[in-house]
Amino acid sequence: MREIFMQELAQVGEDLQRMSRLVIDAIEKASTALQTADLQLAEQVIRADEQIDEIERSLDEQCISLLARQAPVATDLRVVIAALRMSATIERMGDLARHIAYVARGRYPEVAPSPAMQEIFAQMGEAATKVAHQVSDLLATRDLELAAGVERDDDALDALHKQTFTILLDPEVEMTKQQMVDGVLLGRYFERFGDHGVSVARRTSYLVTGDLTNSVARDDAAGER
Amino acid sequence: MREIFMQELAQVGEDLQRMSRLVIDAIEKASTALQTADLQLAEQVIRADEQIDEIERSLDEQCISLLARQAPVATDLRVVIAALRMSATIERMGDLARHIAYVARGRYPEVAPSPAMQEIFAQMGEAATKVAHQVSDLLATRDLELAAGVERDDDALDALHKQTFTILLDPEVEMTKQQMVDGVLLGRYFERFGDHGVSVARRTSYLVTGDLTNSVARDDAAGER
Repeated sequence: MREIFMQELAQVGEDLQRMSRLVIDAIEKASTALQTADLQLAEQVIRADEQIDEIERSLDEQCISLLARQAPVATDLRVVIAALRMSATIERMGDLARHIAYVARGRYPEVAPSPAMQEIFAQMGEAATKVAHQVSDLLATRDLELAAGVERDDDALDALHKQTFTILLDPEVEMTKQQMVDGVLLGRYFERFGDHGVSVARRTSYLVTGDLTNSVARDDAAGER
Repeated sequence: MREIFMQELAQVGEDLQRMSRLVIDAIEKASTALQTADLQLAEQVIRADEQIDEIERSLDEQCISLLARQAPVATDLRVVIAALRMSATIERMGDLARHIAYVARGRYPEVAPSPAMQEIFAQMGEAATKVAHQVSDLLATRDLELAAGVERDDDALDALHKQTFTILLDPEVEMTKQQMVDGVLLGRYFERFGDHGVSVARRTSYLVTGDLTNSVARDDAAGER
């Protein structure tokens, strides 16, 4: 019985990894589409999100069926519950990549960010892609160094997010209203992407170390200005 | 055994209701604080959010301990999993109310929204408060009429959210950059609040009817413009 449980759990872990690889792809392409006004790439991201959603649904069913059939002990139970939560979080990362792709598509053939913000969104795209890579590697290897890396890159994203407001509010910087609106939304999408990455990293750390401290969903402090 | 399970489950249900009542309070006060630049009210919302977070943590522990000790059958299991997810969602609604309060506090003694947007945010505040009330009543009564009400009010929120962009992008409307930034963020906070309300409503409907269709987290279509 225990062996079957472990096998099924391994399958759940593989599905989480598969989701996370799709999210790497999504955020990488969404960031590129945003910088280069690449309509086809943006549409690819939008279409591919359906796949991520599909894995999430299947993962949920697997987890619930696993819990129902195997009556796991408390420790295993926590693993399955954590997996359920991680799948929801990774799915949300996919949504945020899709939102970035929507902005890229919506402004085509223009590049969405104003010239004053292109560099910062390129940096946010890079940091977010790094977060996604580290989350995926962390899920595969459970190497806690990677969890620390996710936290650092999220800190970088938060700092960049603060900078977006400095540019957005700078009276010297000229921007259209559309560029202002897009700038605010894009900043928030990237920042939330990082928060969710941290949430997955913390849950993974918790599974490895059993230390619940900080294993909660990361809240955003975006409003706190 | 079954009786204990049902008792503990009832406790979980009560805690969810308690959270939802705190969220009503939070969104109502945050909206008022926003409209009236009421610093004390905003700070009350910010402080009170800790209580919501606390109930969420305790609910999570209850659910996991319940699953570990009672080895529930598949149907009960789904109820507990749904409760876990609902607590995370209701907690997030509290966060969003807090974010609105941060904006109100950040602009004090000014009223944060530009004159052109005050009416629309008053309406969004009203619709969001209605969502919170209906979610809370739904959790208490499981009256599915209320679930339909949540969907309707969320549709209203989405429509108002679209209108915020019309005003934000209107070349005739004069706004400071700070008012633009706040307008975009506030619109998004209210809109997400409604999405999460729908997510709780759908999960409750699922628990009552067993119909999984639409019982998933509501995605936002904010980027799709």
